[in-house]
Amino acid sequence: MMPDRVKQILSWYESDSPGTLANLRRIIGTGTLKDTGKFVILPVDQGFEHGPHRSFAPNPPGYNPHYHFELALEAGCNAYAAPLGSLEAGARTFAGEIPLILKLNNSDSLFSTKNPSQAVTASVEHALRLGCAAIGFTIYPASANAQTQYEQLNALAEEAKASGLAVVVWSYPRGEGLSKEGETAVDICAYAAQIACQLGAHIVKIKPPTEHLEQPEAKKVFEKHQIPIRTLAERVRHVVQSAFDGRRIVIFSGGPAKDEAAILEEIRGIRDGGGFGSIIGRNAFQRPKDKALPMLRKIMNIYLGKE
Amino acid sequence: MMPDRVKQILSWYESDSPGTLANLRRIIGTGTLKDTGKFVILPVDQGFEHGPHRSFAPNPPGYNPHYHFELALEAGCNAYAAPLGSLEAGARTFAGEIPLILKLNNSDSLFSTKNPSQAVTASVEHALRLGCAAIGFTIYPASANAQTQYEQLNALAEEAKASGLAVVVWSYPRGEGLSKEGETAVDICAYAAQIACQLGAHIVKIKPPTEHLEQPEAKKVFEKHQIPIRTLAERVRHVVQSAFDGRRIVIFSGGPAKDEAAILEEIRGIRDGGGFGSIIGRNAFQRPKDKALPMLRKIMNIYLGKE
Amino acid sequence: MMPDRVKQILSWYESDSPGTLANLRRIIGTGTLKDTGKFVILPVDQGFEHGPHRSFAPNPPGYNPHYHFELALEAGCNAYAAPLGSLEAGARTFAGEIPLILKLNNSDSLFSTKNPSQAVTASVEHALRLGCAAIGFTIYPASANAQTQYEQLNALAEEAKASGLAVVVWSYPRGEGLSKEGETAVDICAYAAQIACQLGAHIVKIKPPTEHLEQPEAKKVFEKHQIPIRTLAERVRHVVQSAFDGRRIVIFSGGPAKDEAAILEEIRGIRDGGGFGSIIGRNAFQRPKDKALPMLRKIMNIYLGKE
Amino acid sequence: MMPDRVKQILSWYESDSPGTLANLRRIIGTGTLKDTGKFVILPVDQGFEHGPHRSFAPNPPGYNPHYHFELALEAGCNAYAAPLGSLEAGARTFAGEIPLILKLNNSDSLFSTKNPSQAVTASVEHALRLGCAAIGFTIYPASANAQTQYEQLNALAEEAKASGLAVVVWSYPRGEGLSKEGETAVDICAYAAQIACQLGAHIVKIKPPTEHLEQPEAKKVFEKHQIPIRTLAERVRHVVQSAFDGRRIVIFSGGPAKDEAAILEEIRGIRDGGGFGSIIGRNAFQRPKDKALPMLRKIMNIYLGKE
Amino acid sequence: MMPDRVKQILSWYESDSPGTLANLRRIIGTGTLKDTGKFVILPVDQGFEHGPHRSFAPNPPGYNPHYHFELALEAGCNAYAAPLGSLEAGARTFAGEIPLILKLNNSDSLFSTKNPSQAVTASVEHALRLGCAAIGFTIYPASANAQTQYEQLNALAEEAKASGLAVVVWSYPRGEGLSKEGETAVDICAYAAQIACQLGAHIVKIKPPTEHLEQPEAKKVFEKHQIPIRTLAERVRHVVQSAFDGRRIVIFSGGPAKDEAAILEEIRGIRDGGGFGSIIGRNAFQRPKDKALPMLRKIMNIYLGKE
Repeated sequence: MMPDRVKQILSWYESDSPGTLANLRRIIGTGTLKDTGKFVILPVDQGFEHGPHRSFAPNPPGYNPHYHFELALEAGCNAYAAPLGSLEAGARTFAGEIPLILKLNNSDSLFSTKNPSQAVTASVEHALRLGCAAIGFTIYPASANAQTQYEQLNALAEEAKASGLAVVVWSYPRGEGLSKEGETAVDICAYAAQIACQLGAHIVKIKPPTEHLEQPEAKKVFEKHQIPIRTLAERVRHVVQSAFDGRRIVIFSGGPAKDEAAILEEIRGIRDGGGFGSIIGRNAFQRPKDKALPMLRKIMNIYLGKE
Repeated sequence: MMPDRVKQILSWYESDSPGTLANLRRIIGTGTLKDTGKFVILPVDQGFEHGPHRSFAPNPPGYNPHYHFELALEAGCNAYAAPLGSLEAGARTFAGEIPLILKLNNSDSLFSTKNPSQAVTASVEHALRLGCAAIGFTIYPASANAQTQYEQLNALAEEAKASGLAVVVWSYPRGEGLSKEGETAVDICAYAAQIACQLGAHIVKIKPPTEHLEQPEAKKVFEKHQIPIRTLAERVRHVVQSAFDGRRIVIFSGGPAKDEAAILEEIRGIRDGGGFGSIIGRNAFQRPKDKALPMLRKIMNIYLGKE
Repeated sequence: MMPDRVKQILSWYESDSPGTLANLRRIIGTGTLKDTGKFVILPVDQGFEHGPHRSFAPNPPGYNPHYHFELALEAGCNAYAAPLGSLEAGARTFAGEIPLILKLNNSDSLFSTKNPSQAVTASVEHALRLGCAAIGFTIYPASANAQTQYEQLNALAEEAKASGLAVVVWSYPRGEGLSKEGETAVDICAYAAQIACQLGAHIVKIKPPTEHLEQPEAKKVFEKHQIPIRTLAERVRHVVQSAFDGRRIVIFSGGPAKDEAAILEEIRGIRDGGGFGSIIGRNAFQRPKDKALPMLRKIMNIYLGKE
Repeated sequence: MMPDRVKQILSWYESDSPGTLANLRRIIGTGTLKDTGKFVILPVDQGFEHGPHRSFAPNPPGYNPHYHFELALEAGCNAYAAPLGSLEAGARTFAGEIPLILKLNNSDSLFSTKNPSQAVTASVEHALRLGCAAIGFTIYPASANAQTQYEQLNALAEEAKASGLAVVVWSYPRGEGLSKEGETAVDICAYAAQIACQLGAHIVKIKPPTEHLEQPEAKKVFEKHQIPIRTLAERVRHVVQSAFDGRRIVIFSGGPAKDEAAILEEIRGIRDGGGFGSIIGRNAFQRPKDKALPMLRKIMNIYLGKE
Repeated sequence: MMPDRVKQILSWYESDSPGTLANLRRIIGTGTLKDTGKFVILPVDQGFEHGPHRSFAPNPPGYNPHYHFELALEAGCNAYAAPLGSLEAGARTFAGEIPLILKLNNSDSLFSTKNPSQAVTASVEHALRLGCAAIGFTIYPASANAQTQYEQLNALAEEAKASGLAVVVWSYPRGEGLSKEGETAVDICAYAAQIACQLGAHIVKIKPPTEHLEQPEAKKVFEKHQIPIRTLAERVRHVVQSAFDGRRIVIFSGGPAKDEAAILEEIRGIRDGGGFGSIIGRNAFQRPKDKALPMLRKIMNIYLGKE
């Protein structure tokens, strides 16, 4: 029987086909956090985004795409997300072992611009052919190119849903419209979550919000209505509320590699604020596996309420 | 039997299929203003346009997309208009309860430009799949991007009509070609209504026009032919005349939240000028429901000639 | 039996299908100038191009789209040309009463640029659905956007012809490549006619040419070969010759509203130069109908050789 | 039986279908130079490119599109090339009389830019419907828009070949990357021929090369390997070698009108250098027919080795 | 029976169809290096890229496209890669003689820009029609146009794979984001290999990396983790590791013509670093055949471990 919490989560996605719900169900029902409605996902697109040495030299087995499938499986993650090439390289060996999220757009750090975008580097058909449960897509709200990205996402998400796939959106505000500090401001993170939900995301990935408030008009509202944002838990709570009052799955990225204590502290904040989980990349695959697995276990224990 | 006023209104749409007329009929025939040929519609795209806190912190139940379906139903609105995500979140719970208008394009306030545009964030197929009665689309006449928007609208409207849907156009002049004051000038609002009609809109939404005249050539014409524009009613009359001599449904937006007396005064002006109704967003959903419902009732009573 | 002049005109269109020829035949065979090979066409796109008050305030019944169908019918015009919305508003009432030309692209005067273009605001399918005999399309030779417009016209004209419709091209040189005076220079008008013919137009609409010569290289040729351009008739003769030596229908626009004597004088020049007729908008619909009908009758009499 | 020279020429086109080879065969096998493997083609796109008076005032019968079909036929040309409108105007009268080349892109001289392009003004379907043997397409290597033009040509040529048509490329270097003198430099003309061959042209049209060398790196190579370029024959030989070592048909344009002696001198140079023939426009149709026919006869005699 | 090394290499391509694997198998199984898992490929696109004289004057038989088919065959290369025109010119004569790679995009040196791109000059259908085993495509990471190129490659590669073809990517960092020296920096070459793999390449072609480190963030990583890059072999090893830990075929270009000793020295470095082979253009076809064949033999012997 489907646990009540799973039924509840699926009930929020009122317009989706049984096919898409089945794939969401697979992600919910996989790994250590199975059926708890909490999530830890392994994403590895840094080879493309930052280059191979910056990504894998700290833990060289990571140069091999098989390593990340194995890491996600052994750690008990809910899903593994990566660009086309990485998934092609393990598709047959790990067929059906773990829900896969094909990242459909990517960028590199060889050319930079104040209004970033990403190239569409794979298709919904690729995702189907590789046996994925979902597509992943990055948007950069606040970039001059954001509207083009929204239109790309809209088309790809519609096609994905029509094919029974789920849609995961990386919503990372960035570009001319924002200060650097503003990229993780709590008002901006909440806005980014709202936009992803409006664009039809099933799962929204955002950065852990800071106490900074970026937009003057938003600041007035936060002050007038005394929205609490002092602790990470409070800020996460606001972001989750901004995602259809908690009726969409919102998970948080781990950011650059840091020490374990800092990570676990952050996870507790996310959990206490009602966040649905984490997507942990560099902090997982840049550690040797014998360090990464225990740490991921601790993270999962926090979400399970055991730590 | 179809009331005469309804027959008359439908008779204006000479090129439409029975399918599209049936959906217009549903909008005309719903709610408190049923079959009067008057309209009050609830639009909620502010989460996308202004961000979640600026939109919903004044009345936090609004964070939940279900709230707005319920508000529109309880208030007896003719229809509820919103972006993709908001409609997806209530599509099943409220299926068939109230005519829905899927807003097909949207923008956010994280990036601004003097020549605005909107991203196409949903499709006609989405509207059909969600059981909508109409699509909604914003154009910004006077923007350098207006021609591109007209072309998008043309393609989407043609597809919508071929699928039996109605077309609602938000015609909001904005951009390099206008002063800030000019955005609501009576000559500009009338021109905006005309453009929307020429592009094939069934229902045109514009802002209440001010007494300002923006274009020198238009000013000469208003003066020469002594077109009266001193009162809101007079200005509304000119705008309605500019919409195919009253043969298209023209409704007026409510604008930023303000006090009830000011709102009701404005509604009387619209009614007296022959306007077809209002589309009331922030003034409805940013009030607690027990304040919003009575106010919407008063607005409807004005259109019913009861106040 | 088909009159010889009609046979002759149709014989020029050597590549067209019987369907397209039948629609040309309908335009030739309609109204007061029926079967004479002369044309007076009513165009009303000024609501879109200049705004509703500038267009219709001088004669307010014109706010109603039905008025223009009636005016064209009562005046005995060969055809009525208008944008999508205007034709949609009368499509059923006037079905089959008069050949319709759907103007497929339009622009407004809320945004201006030195290199103008127009938005494509309707499709060939619209024209078929509305029972039109032809599509209309404006090009702006000398604009930086002209090549894009030629490509749009090429695609739409090919589709129209494949559907049995005729193609009417408004060829209005305008843009960075020309002085203001040059827009109606005789060398430029002749060039504009040639371009429209090369792009596959059946009927070409240009402005009455002035004596000005714009291009230095053209000026040399006019002088060397002593091409007469002193009178309007001479200039019209050159333009008609430039349209495949008279083997394409070339008609002339009426321009801004002016007094009747000036109009009739101009018409005589067009007739004497071998022009095929006129397309009279503002000078027709901005007069009260009881003034417009007699004037249009006089114009037609000139073409009939009666005045 | 097919003459050996014809067999040889056709053998170079190793990837083409019998349909395309049959159309090449038709061009080779038509007119005074029939089956010699030499070509004189009449092109008339100057009405579009330079305007009607500059093109046709010197010999006014040329205003009539029929004139050029007749001129090409009477002169014994291998083919007649023109834009859409010109071919449409004679398609039925001259059906099957002479191989036709539909010029698929064109530009006018009303707007100029340092990085020229051309508008695509007709389609492969047009060419088929008009009974053409080939499509024609202009590229401007050295323009910032050249890559876009290559992509357009690639798509149209693929479609043409799939439909059994041949492909003729006007390769005219022009744009920001070149000096004015460089447009006809021998290194540039040779490069232009190579590019057209690589893009899949069956017949390449270039300008007669001058002794100028444009690119410093090319100059070094010409000097080091002592490539002879002093006479036109030597330069033509280099260009022909650059077109797959003579395994593609390369013909040369005639350029602006000039006196007969100068023309014939140029033709002898082309012939002596192994050029395949000429494409003679203005020098043919801007002379009265009784002057043009004898001159074209002399040109053909040169190619036949009789003068 | 399939040799173990061949089985191993094919096993890395986990998502490919038997059709694509069969074409990879053909390339692996052809020529002197047959079934060794080493490769020497002849590419000839310099006629397009640098012009005919710069490319072929040093060894004039190369003007004839047949020459290069013969050279590749006689030298025992694994495959021959060229643009459309070159392959069309030999497709029938050499049908099935050697695996062909159709280069789908190309650029010339008549126009240069700091952010280069290439025109798409052929299609997957062309490759199938010409009997090719693979498509080739160049990307310029670090160019402002790189994202557009990634999207073109993504679409073409997906179509190629669906048709059973293999995909070879020339990954040449170039553009605003890099210094000239950085184009061959070891960090950049490794990054370029990674990007090509992520985009779905079966075979990646890069330039031999230099000791230079371009990106400050990468430099820190190379120093911290003491990645050896002093010798070419060490640098090649890093690049191969960066290509999915050696699970993709990475081959190296030969660069500008140089003396034989320098070439062979470089080949030994590539071999010692675990590189899969070379793609030798100018150093092969710009030498007389009686010099080129022995040199290519020596190169192959190095890969065979005989020199």
